[in-house]
Amino acid sequence: MTTVTAYAAPAEGAPLEKTTIERRALGPLDVRIDIAYAGICHSDIHTVRGDWGPQHYPLAPGHEIAGTVAEVGAEVTRFAVGDRVGVGCLVNSCGECAECLAGQQQYCRVGATGTYGAIDRDGTVTQGGYSTQVVVTEGFVLRIPDALPLDGAAPLLCAGITTYSPLRHWKVGPGSRVAVIGLGGLGHMAVQIAHAMGAEVTVLSQTLSKKDVGLRLGADHYYATSDAESLREIRRSFDVIINTVSAPLNLDTYLRLLDTNGTLVCVGAPPEAQSFNVSSLIAARRSLAGSNIGGIPETQDMLDFCAEHGITAEIETIDASAINEAYERVLASDVRFRFVIDIASMR
Amino acid sequence: MTTVTAYAAPAEGAPLEKTTIERRALGPLDVRIDIAYAGICHSDIHTVRGDWGPQHYPLAPGHEIAGTVAEVGAEVTRFAVGDRVGVGCLVNSCGECAECLAGQQQYCRVGATGTYGAIDRDGTVTQGGYSTQVVVTEGFVLRIPDALPLDGAAPLLCAGITTYSPLRHWKVGPGSRVAVIGLGGLGHMAVQIAHAMGAEVTVLSQTLSKKDVGLRLGADHYYATSDAESLREIRRSFDVIINTVSAPLNLDTYLRLLDTNGTLVCVGAPPEAQSFNVSSLIAARRSLAGSNIGGIPETQDMLDFCAEHGITAEIETIDASAINEAYERVLASDVRFRFVIDIASMR
Repeated sequence: MTTVTAYAAPAEGAPLEKTTIERRALGPLDVRIDIAYAGICHSDIHTVRGDWGPQHYPLAPGHEIAGTVAEVGAEVTRFAVGDRVGVGCLVNSCGECAECLAGQQQYCRVGATGTYGAIDRDGTVTQGGYSTQVVVTEGFVLRIPDALPLDGAAPLLCAGITTYSPLRHWKVGPGSRVAVIGLGGLGHMAVQIAHAMGAEVTVLSQTLSKKDVGLRLGADHYYATSDAESLREIRRSFDVIINTVSAPLNLDTYLRLLDTNGTLVCVGAPPEAQSFNVSSLIAARRSLAGSNIGGIPETQDMLDFCAEHGITAEIETIDASAINEAYERVLASDVRFRFVIDIASMR
Repeated sequence: MTTVTAYAAPAEGAPLEKTTIERRALGPLDVRIDIAYAGICHSDIHTVRGDWGPQHYPLAPGHEIAGTVAEVGAEVTRFAVGDRVGVGCLVNSCGECAECLAGQQQYCRVGATGTYGAIDRDGTVTQGGYSTQVVVTEGFVLRIPDALPLDGAAPLLCAGITTYSPLRHWKVGPGSRVAVIGLGGLGHMAVQIAHAMGAEVTVLSQTLSKKDVGLRLGADHYYATSDAESLREIRRSFDVIINTVSAPLNLDTYLRLLDTNGTLVCVGAPPEAQSFNVSSLIAARRSLAGSNIGGIPETQDMLDFCAEHGITAEIETIDASAINEAYERVLASDVRFRFVIDIASMR
């Protein structure tokens, strides 16, 4: 066991504070990572505050982790000390089910192990990336290409893969007409990635306040969802819509924007049930789907794709002491577009 | 114009009665059909009773039509007098949009013309198959293979294609695990067709009362949806679920039965909004979709497929004078599985 510095919530609803947590002794297949940056994901806030159910405390969140390899276990073959690496939302899975064998660990039939707040295979509770070091089995460590800065790459490990995976799965490419609902942490990645895939990209945001940056990130069109007339004009005109909003929406309104055979993919899950009318689907053989992050090979593909196309998250880097303040700003949607903690400030 | 005998509702909510309706003069591309049988679809009842909005009356319903060609227009090339033919839910469409050009007239961007109660391209209101004759442009006339009896084939034109189309679209074949919710007019076709496509077929019905017939039609497994324990045991075990029930269901319960990447396709549209939780989709990249009948080429494929596999609807043939009584029995789910009107009884 190694004791490392971390920022953790001591109890449900309590602010995060500087503390120490334990990392397991390095196993033969483990990689010890010196964390350089950790992104702040909206789900970190929900989790540590208990919004999604009771947690084990103290809890250090963080599943957008970038850093360098500090030490490798005796049987590690794919990584060496000094390598630039990342860890996303998962640190383990059964490894034996059809999904794991297909590299879709996020849908593991036994249940994949989340990077924080999950019971790991050894019975311990996982602790996330708001910490100076993490120990992860090499099968769940990603390589961060040299072309990507570690700070702007950190959010790719969650926000990037969450939007990349459905865009790939629903075969977005040149000629595809893609809409992105919401221009936040997830949405600003979806716009950049869909644009780089060759799609015609439309942002659907509550207002036009972020239009300039949306267009700069690669959007071809930008509409305010508060403008019903504009939404009527773009009915039946998209192949894929990525819904990044984690609050209930009028799904029928957005389903009607899909062309024949189109798919509306939800990547954020509001806890409330949502309603819709089946006729919105039947009218044009539309689908309403959900997608959960991505598997490990696909996450590596995403990092390589982002390196090739010069895509990173737009970030605001903060010291660890500003985490609680940053949480409040995330909840107020006052961030363009992702806070990233400089872990050097924790040392 | 030709005056023909029909059974029509004289007003909203009124019983159907024997009357006469007009058929247009035969145009150069038109086919006049002597109707032999017309199936009774649940939607006939909803439409004539005004459940789905106001109608023009008198209204003769019927969109499961089988008969023989009585006369052809001067430019008709694909049909000759005496040919065994059918007409389904559509009798026209714009013919020029991408969907029509792809043979998916059911999703025509201008709006396809329904077989009854719709405003036709010439401004008249279409009248359905509870009638001795119908005149239809040859592009919307189907060929009924010799291997299929006309009476058992009539319901294929709606119930058959409504279930065949999504099974084909979502690529059901050998190895597919298909569940069918509801064993009625639509469900008993879905079971037969999915079985003939090589799928492993499971019926999910409210009770086990029709289990014997479900297994005879080709189902491999049969569960009562009232049995929560059984439903728990078959979680995450289907690739495609065809929901033939036109009433709100607990969608989350059924979505959880889908395996990773599975699709629940609704082919019946309850007028009420339905609710579900997005997490049921996200957990295993599931989709909730809708499908509307099928296009003309696909309907011909379906008829040829049914002929090849010896598939027809299970029917109870009635005289036209029994239509109103049959409607009550349909509403009471007291039919196995489709009423077909013997149009000879109308002459």
